Amino acid sequence: MFIGKVVGSLWATRKVDNTSGIKFLIIQPYNLNKAPNTDTIVAADTLGAGEGELVMVAYGRAARMALGNDDMSIEAAVIGIIDEYTVDKDSYSGDLDPEKLSFKK
Amino acid sequence: MFIGKVVGSLWATRKVDNTSGIKFLIIQPYNLNKAPNTDTIVAADTLGAGEGELVMVAYGRAARMALGNDDMSIEAAVIGIIDEYTVDKDSYSGDLDPEKLSFKK
Amino acid sequence: MFIGKVVGSLWATRKVDNTSGIKFLIIQPYNLNKAPNTDTIVAADTLGAGEGELVMVAYGRAARMALGNDDMSIEAAVIGIIDEYTVDKDSYSGDLDPEKLSFKK
Amino acid sequence: MFIGKVVGSLWATRKVDNTSGIKFLIIQPYNLNKAPNTDTIVAADTLGAGEGELVMVAYGRAARMALGNDDMSIEAAVIGIIDEYTVDKDSYSGDLDPEKLSFKK
Amino acid sequence: MFIGKVVGSLWATRKVDNTSGIKFLIIQPYNLNKAPNTDTIVAADTLGAGEGELVMVAYGRAARMALGNDDMSIEAAVIGIIDEYTVDKDSYSGDLDPEKLSFKK
Repeated sequence: MFIGKVVGSLWATRKVDNTSGIKFLIIQPYNLNKAPNTDTIVAADTLGAGEGELVMVAYGRAARMALGNDDMSIEAAVIGIIDEYTVDKDSYSGDLDPEKLSFKK
Repeated sequence: MFIGKVVGSLWATRKVDNTSGIKFLIIQPYNLNKAPNTDTIVAADTLGAGEGELVMVAYGRAARMALGNDDMSIEAAVIGIIDEYTVDKDSYSGDLDPEKLSFKK
Repeated sequence: MFIGKVVGSLWATRKVDNTSGIKFLIIQPYNLNKAPNTDTIVAADTLGAGEGELVMVAYGRAARMALGNDDMSIEAAVIGIIDEYTVDKDSYSGDLDPEKLSFKK
Repeated sequence: MFIGKVVGSLWATRKVDNTSGIKFLIIQPYNLNKAPNTDTIVAADTLGAGEGELVMVAYGRAARMALGNDDMSIEAAVIGIIDEYTVDKDSYSGDLDPEKLSFKK
Repeated sequence: MFIGKVVGSLWATRKVDNTSGIKFLIIQPYNLNKAPNTDTIVAADTLGAGEGELVMVAYGRAARMALGNDDMSIEAAVIGIIDEYTVDKDSYSGDLDPEKLSFKK
């Protein structure tokens, strides 16, 4: 699992039947380093996460269990909306972004 | 899951029996950053996605469920053809390509 | 599986029901090279790992089996707290950090 | 799934019992970009792919289904030998190698 | 699956119960290129692989099948100890390390 930031939404009319009614978010993996992770991924959301929110994302069976159905064509889902995190800066190795040392909503 | 752009097709005569009749597309993962992701992947398609279209791709059981059969030797599939997406530029971290801020078919 | 260092914790009130009561740690993959791996991941923990400790992390079904329930929306978990490791410096290729040649708690 | 080029073979006498009789190939992921992908992976092969041939490779259950047995300790397999592919150069983003625009055996 | 070199061992007293008695190796993915892959991974071993040996590593269910139990919290395992490999240098793209063209134990 990883921390991601919700950066957008996407819509698809032609899609696999077993995904109808699912909301899809565009999520950027979030790291503690100054250099951002520039990929984006797509995850299903049932929690109502909004743009700019930090979320936990899970892949595979874990994602489908968030939707309650292991037979859906869904590979990633938001499993939590993050309220708070703390990082121990002495434990982290790398060019830690000081603005990311902790977060409270 | 991720957004990909359909960039080509491939054909294989000698292949595992349980994949016969499946159409295979060459897909380039699409990111919002100016620097492209240069890998390509291969995915099964049942939705009729065409070259240049943006699609959602899923891996694993999710992909096989798109084909309706978890016993096929298929690891990736197109699960939707994207009509539209929007990105919140203030949420994205990185060198966002301004042409990728939003998309409408 | 990989070695990770516990660098923080996170909390989410709104989350998928099947994850309630689970403790989530922020973990940085640990490598033997001088250049750190700058990503971080999130893993469930049932062993009581503390900040700065080295742990083994597993993904997928292996992670859910650590929680005793394959139906949870959990994709990664701490499966052990490392007491000791040794590395054979002649076998490793790369810019080995001499401080990482061995570890004993 | 991805396109790979068969670059070698490997042999192991001491191996997990459930993999006996399986042929293992060394495969280099193939990309369309000028800069090669320098990792190599190992995949089981039942199709008789030869050195230098382009193949499709799948991971996980998809790979084991190519061998007809989900209980084998096999994580990757060749699922097809590529006869032909075409790429639409206007859809690809990146430093496309012009020699890789299309392939016909 | 991939080729790895055994570079070390690790020990954990506090660990998930279902992993007791398992030996854990630290393994560096091995590539044919001059530039080494600097990550390391952890894999269970039942074959008695020693430091410096080249092994095949598999992830997921394949790894657990090497231990004979899909309910263990194990995500990676050694599935073979490599006796020999050969590479066709004309098929490989990249900065091949000439010392890695072939291997015989």
